[in-house]
Amino acid sequence: MNPIVIKLGGAAGVDAEAVCADVAALAAQGQPVVLVHGVSAAADVLAARTGTPVRHLTSPSGHVSRYTDADMIELFVAAAAGQVNKRLVADLQRQGCNAVGLSGVDGRLLVARRKTAVRAVENGRQRVVRDDFTGQLETANGGLLRLLMGQGYTPVVAPLALGTEGERLNVDGDRAAALLAATLGAATLIILSNVPGLLAAFPDEASLVRHVSPAQLDAAEAMAQGRMKKKVLAAREALAGGVPQVILGDSRRPQPIFVALAGEGTFFGSPADEPAAVPVLWPQFIPAHLLARGD
Amino acid sequence: MNPIVIKLGGAAGVDAEAVCADVAALAAQGQPVVLVHGVSAAADVLAARTGTPVRHLTSPSGHVSRYTDADMIELFVAAAAGQVNKRLVADLQRQGCNAVGLSGVDGRLLVARRKTAVRAVENGRQRVVRDDFTGQLETANGGLLRLLMGQGYTPVVAPLALGTEGERLNVDGDRAAALLAATLGAATLIILSNVPGLLAAFPDEASLVRHVSPAQLDAAEAMAQGRMKKKVLAAREALAGGVPQVILGDSRRPQPIFVALAGEGTFFGSPADEPAAVPVLWPQFIPAHLLARGD
Repeated sequence: MNPIVIKLGGAAGVDAEAVCADVAALAAQGQPVVLVHGVSAAADVLAARTGTPVRHLTSPSGHVSRYTDADMIELFVAAAAGQVNKRLVADLQRQGCNAVGLSGVDGRLLVARRKTAVRAVENGRQRVVRDDFTGQLETANGGLLRLLMGQGYTPVVAPLALGTEGERLNVDGDRAAALLAATLGAATLIILSNVPGLLAAFPDEASLVRHVSPAQLDAAEAMAQGRMKKKVLAAREALAGGVPQVILGDSRRPQPIFVALAGEGTFFGSPADEPAAVPVLWPQFIPAHLLARGD
Repeated sequence: MNPIVIKLGGAAGVDAEAVCADVAALAAQGQPVVLVHGVSAAADVLAARTGTPVRHLTSPSGHVSRYTDADMIELFVAAAAGQVNKRLVADLQRQGCNAVGLSGVDGRLLVARRKTAVRAVENGRQRVVRDDFTGQLETANGGLLRLLMGQGYTPVVAPLALGTEGERLNVDGDRAAALLAATLGAATLIILSNVPGLLAAFPDEASLVRHVSPAQLDAAEAMAQGRMKKKVLAAREALAGGVPQVILGDSRRPQPIFVALAGEGTFFGSPADEPAAVPVLWPQFIPAHLLARGD
């Protein structure tokens, strides 16, 4: 069975326990799942505890990323592969799901090229940053995940990558999830964060965009604000890599994965009225009360 | 081929790069290796950076362990499964060895029972500590390590365990290595630290004990000081679990694993003059100049 790849955001406010409950339920039904997680709030807390300033870089095209110098990558690795990853693995284990935590460094799961010169905009002016340990994703080792899933394990992946010179690099979790989904031939990529999906008028949650067809991707990317830009980019990359559908869903509510599969959030894919591209929603996995809403 | 289990100490002064070079060389020759690592120095550094006091507990029998309360376990997990584990994995990857980092939490690799009431001696008086997240090891999942080794991966294991209630627990790395060696039917367990082996008159390195037979284990345990007590206990547990030989070796020198296999350090096992128990030293793996020393 083709796996589902779930990305759980790392910002404050996500309901990790509800996400783990859904992952455990899917895994118990025999549906292979890969859970990729963010790190941002945990890395910020650890940085604050050590008195390390947290800085961000804004690219000329408006993408925001963490400024990860040699000291910050040590803290980022600690928060990502240590704290967040093992908390999720322990949560899943408590719910009877045999999770195995990995980072992209392990088994060359994610290989990236270090961005040795990053252009960043600060106060309206561009500068070049050279001490950033952030990577541009290149390849993923799907075989390692298939090996584990084949034996009933549920992989939980921290967004680190191995650099081409053996460095540990910070990579974007949404795009890492997209690369893994494409590599594994996933049936769906679900990106959960602390908003309902793509909002036409952020932060008005009533302005939720329900559907983005491939032809509307440019418009969606232009509409997205801040971190949402990366999620739309990840959706584009997953679709381009052959993943038939991507859903941006809300991780602050109960059963976040099941309601996303039942049609909440923002759906990226071919229009549902094209018979060849009916969304694969696995009705057998979705609790009846969610299907009955007639939403 | 039966694996070799290597335990690399976590104290300051160990030469992790030299250990990784030997692990990579063994793996390249087709010898499966499991590397288990300590955490102590890295956990102390992270605790100091966050202003968290590091405390230790001394049991009535003289064993010393880290006092791991709810806050310390967060930092311990960060240092263990994050910083140290991923640094070793990246070091091995840089040397061409396809390492995969795990902690005992992952895939129920190490399951332990939390010690909910720990007797500790402080200033000559006993007290009971109830908020310690330290575990007594119970079982290991050898299947997960065999699955990975069977596909050419080299597992690197952080000394955490999953508690029976899903807690993340600090466990002793030496004893974790002994349990994994016994579970895997390892040919050898090598415990490397920043001393040459068991010293009859610590810290006099000329007082190295070269050989401890099973009948001499009680005397060796009585002789050992401080942290060395746990290493002798681990050796005893590995031998009792069917591992034919355990070597305590020095991680501060070049080729620490190969010189341990060539006969340096303290050898635990049946006397070498018993033909049925000739130590398995894999001469094909040992560089010729080490064998030629006639030591």
